[in-house]
Amino acid sequence: MSERTPQNARYRDAGVDLDAAAAVKSRLRALVERTLPAGAVGPGLFSGLLPRPDGSHLAATIDGVGTKTGIAAWTGRYRGLGIDIVHHCADDLLAVNARPLFFLDYFGASRLEPALLLEVVEGMAGACEGVGAALLGGETAQMPGTYAEGEIDIVGCMIGSVAPGALITGRDVEPGDAVIGLASDGLHTNGYSLARRALFESGRFAVDDRLAALGGETLGEALLRPHRHYGAAVDAALAVAGVRAMAHITGGGIEENLARVLPAGAGAAIDAGAWAVPPLFALIAEAGGIAADEMRRVFNMGIGFCLVVPRDAAASALAAARATGVEAWAIGETVVGGGVRWG
Amino acid sequence: MSERTPQNARYRDAGVDLDAAAAVKSRLRALVERTLPAGAVGPGLFSGLLPRPDGSHLAATIDGVGTKTGIAAWTGRYRGLGIDIVHHCADDLLAVNARPLFFLDYFGASRLEPALLLEVVEGMAGACEGVGAALLGGETAQMPGTYAEGEIDIVGCMIGSVAPGALITGRDVEPGDAVIGLASDGLHTNGYSLARRALFESGRFAVDDRLAALGGETLGEALLRPHRHYGAAVDAALAVAGVRAMAHITGGGIEENLARVLPAGAGAAIDAGAWAVPPLFALIAEAGGIAADEMRRVFNMGIGFCLVVPRDAAASALAAARATGVEAWAIGETVVGGGVRWG
Repeated sequence: MSERTPQNARYRDAGVDLDAAAAVKSRLRALVERTLPAGAVGPGLFSGLLPRPDGSHLAATIDGVGTKTGIAAWTGRYRGLGIDIVHHCADDLLAVNARPLFFLDYFGASRLEPALLLEVVEGMAGACEGVGAALLGGETAQMPGTYAEGEIDIVGCMIGSVAPGALITGRDVEPGDAVIGLASDGLHTNGYSLARRALFESGRFAVDDRLAALGGETLGEALLRPHRHYGAAVDAALAVAGVRAMAHITGGGIEENLARVLPAGAGAAIDAGAWAVPPLFALIAEAGGIAADEMRRVFNMGIGFCLVVPRDAAASALAAARATGVEAWAIGETVVGGGVRWG
Repeated sequence: MSERTPQNARYRDAGVDLDAAAAVKSRLRALVERTLPAGAVGPGLFSGLLPRPDGSHLAATIDGVGTKTGIAAWTGRYRGLGIDIVHHCADDLLAVNARPLFFLDYFGASRLEPALLLEVVEGMAGACEGVGAALLGGETAQMPGTYAEGEIDIVGCMIGSVAPGALITGRDVEPGDAVIGLASDGLHTNGYSLARRALFESGRFAVDDRLAALGGETLGEALLRPHRHYGAAVDAALAVAGVRAMAHITGGGIEENLARVLPAGAGAAIDAGAWAVPPLFALIAEAGGIAADEMRRVFNMGIGFCLVVPRDAAASALAAARATGVEAWAIGETVVGGGVRWG
């Protein structure tokens, strides 16, 4: 991480301290461990896991859409936030090879605006149908004073099932396996605090600025693109290749999220030139004066999901994923030695 | 509802509009219905239900602790909030006769304070052990700008299982059944927006005021008492009586929550003199100039959970619940004609 250029906008400056978050994580884990029955897996993977008597596992994840809510507020378009949270959760389940059973949402706001809530739930319900999750429940909380005036938070919890023997946790990864990256569509649901600061404070852009660099889209449209669901692409890859690990690229970028599913002592070398980073990321970096390594720790950089497959299965997995309409690239390989390195 | 005394503090005046919330509920339900597979139950009961191939049901609930967070902030004591959210969720599951499998939490804040987060999770983890839920995951979101400075929100999602044939939904309730009320311990997790306004704005109390009416407790201590878990009391009652319906008394009070589990055309007559409403509620009503009917629509009034049992089983169910250390009273009976009436 470079501290050399004083204009670098560190994520901490935008009010989010990733180091402080990491420091408490290990203590939290210890508290959690003692609640776990034999065979259960708490935080660490993309979904928690509870073994069931029939050999299957229940998988569970909880997430929020973060400060993407602000972009929705500025543009008055909320439907996509409902899609975002459902797809974010479904991709967390997918990363352990779970398939959705049901979803619940929490909608917190300073004040309930019925039209806004309906728009979000409309997005959620449609996305739930798409991924095959029953929308089993939801809670709406009006908390004037807790939320800043006009602000909302959207949280989702999705539960899925992993068939007996089908769990994928990365433990079978071997050095020299291929890392396949599936294309993201915009920022998905991570990095919005920094992106907002870079674009709208440092860069003085407006959400309705229509930019040639974005193919004529407005910034608001580009920033609101919903989180992709990778179910079809992953199913296609699973049908033709022995997938050894999967990573959903969320906060922490490719580095942190890919590292989460690699066995102890294993790392990955990522070829930064293997795909074209979409122009939205360059725009954010330039507007905010954000160094490349900081960008990679915060944003997905154009890769929303990674698959680790044996090297000789890479071509068929790539072709299978692409056939579902998702662009995909071989973006690196696993190596001996921990951590994710960029080349 | 009385509009006669202009000093009446309606819940709406505290920034929470219950009528607006009710109006959108039916439209939300229609959106949700189309995501539900055969046999699944969405919002309406205290937990959503998904039938499983073995005849069991998965039950799921999501809740927040609401503006009780403010009392914790003023007193610097956060551990109880973790207990609150776990017990709130576990009681929602209990109301359909589900037993906890696992829990996930979401902690949103303007800024992450590690010590505060750890205190909350410590409360959660201990309560999860107590109710038998694995703490499978959690999400921590730092959202400066979304949350007012120094404010937090705490959300929990709990999943449980209902054994084949064990589901209790109220459909077997008959006129003349007994309603048994189990004692609450303070406000649990509902009505804090109105209580804060009544006590600390209208009434000009302070959280560290030590009041004789509260048995020498400070207001802060009385308001922070954790949400009770009724698992032991309900198990004891189930062992001796055919329980036909259960209601977790949350926002909306006895009226709304008991009505949720009565069949179409059935109501309940509640004898308001059957138990002594704890002094905290009288203090809130007096400080805020809140009419009795409004109090009953917002607060639990000393009853945290209701059981509906055949009349001839009431005495044994009462005795069984009391033997677990929870005070209980026969507070009314079911009647022909919808709604809950007070007498």
